[in-house]
Amino acid sequence: MKLIFIGAGNLATQLALACSKQGFEILQVYSRTEASARALAEKVQCGFTTSLSELRDDADLYLFSVKDDALPGLLAAMKPNNGIWAHTAGSIPMSVFDGYTDKQGVFYPLQTFSKSRTVNFRKIPIFIEASSEAVAESLLQIASRLSDQVSLLTSDKRKRLHLAAVFACNFTNHMYVLASKLLQEEHIPIDVLQPLIDETAAKIHDLTPAAAQTGPAVRYDEQVISKQLGMLSDPRMQELYRLLSESIHQEAINKPT
Amino acid sequence: MKLIFIGAGNLATQLALACSKQGFEILQVYSRTEASARALAEKVQCGFTTSLSELRDDADLYLFSVKDDALPGLLAAMKPNNGIWAHTAGSIPMSVFDGYTDKQGVFYPLQTFSKSRTVNFRKIPIFIEASSEAVAESLLQIASRLSDQVSLLTSDKRKRLHLAAVFACNFTNHMYVLASKLLQEEHIPIDVLQPLIDETAAKIHDLTPAAAQTGPAVRYDEQVISKQLGMLSDPRMQELYRLLSESIHQEAINKPT
Repeated sequence: MKLIFIGAGNLATQLALACSKQGFEILQVYSRTEASARALAEKVQCGFTTSLSELRDDADLYLFSVKDDALPGLLAAMKPNNGIWAHTAGSIPMSVFDGYTDKQGVFYPLQTFSKSRTVNFRKIPIFIEASSEAVAESLLQIASRLSDQVSLLTSDKRKRLHLAAVFACNFTNHMYVLASKLLQEEHIPIDVLQPLIDETAAKIHDLTPAAAQTGPAVRYDEQVISKQLGMLSDPRMQELYRLLSESIHQEAINKPT
Repeated sequence: MKLIFIGAGNLATQLALACSKQGFEILQVYSRTEASARALAEKVQCGFTTSLSELRDDADLYLFSVKDDALPGLLAAMKPNNGIWAHTAGSIPMSVFDGYTDKQGVFYPLQTFSKSRTVNFRKIPIFIEASSEAVAESLLQIASRLSDQVSLLTSDKRKRLHLAAVFACNFTNHMYVLASKLLQEEHIPIDVLQPLIDETAAKIHDLTPAAAQTGPAVRYDEQVISKQLGMLSDPRMQELYRLLSESIHQEAINKPT
């Protein structure tokens, strides 16, 4: 299997590294940003281009991993070829390829990727969608070489999974950002929160998230809630605190006991 | 050191278990709920009471671990004694003991506790405050037997730390709750999110939370954001999504590059 990566962002970088490590041949990397294209090409030792007209047409799989907004324009500018075209986006239906190719696929690794942090793909769930059995087989074959948790998922369910992931990862990380801002103001290092953050994540291996919930909002400790609201000077953080506390309390009331 | 636990909730339970394991003698457990008092007393093999008038007066340390709202009333109902009185609450100043005892302290383990999940106290930061050197020494001595990360912290800083912990833990766990609700509606098991949740927490051992941020909001991928908003039927979740995405975007703009 010969691969071409269209896009050289966080996900493309980590996926390309994992594919390269597993012995897949990467022919070329495309990015409209030369520095990104070059950086990834150097990491996986292949050629790169910033021009779609220079894209090679002899790959078995073209993996599109670009900002969602950019994908339709990019597809419209692609020359046809005989490879499978698959994207890695949670929220884009496979039908985005309609009119461009019949060999359509989706290759969605459910993880948060940063360029500088290598992740263990073996533990990353990969969700596949394909326009035919043959395409499914090719994508499943690649995915299974990378990960132990590969499954098929429709566009509709993947879209919902991506939304859940935004809550579980992106919004969660933003909570860490806000927490670290609060500590910075008092010159307390963020490190003191790490055991708490680790345990909060680890806890739900054993308990449901609803059962794991602790803190003033679940007890509806109004004294603490109103004191803490008063400590927040940023109106947006105050609004978030209020809304999140209400939401936690509401879930606690509705929880089956 | 002979200890008495006032309160038998999640924190009291785990702290009493850790103290008992380290060989501290626990004389008695008080809770106004008999089942809770009995359950904890059985775990640490001591007596229990639901009546403050039956509280023994010969302990070296009385550890108050009750809902914040309940503490003032409880203190007003306590008979005086010669032990140290310390509480375990993040948001309550040590001065809550003024007028009741001169031997005041705070013993604040920064962690999320559930009754059914045993935690490793060695890695839990414990923050101590004390009204005198002698009280500080007693509390530091106990804390150091339990944990490798013990430090002194004023009431003002502890209050701020507790607020940060609400974001880093309670609000974070609520994100897990909301994510799992979204998956339940599609009959997708929450387990598929666990590697993502674990990596999100692990990532900030290496990167600052700001550098670790990923997802549609940080890229300000308006197409994804508006599609995802449309998928949320619950108005409160919609409002949370909108507010969190704005907040992430604002942080990304302000971030020093």
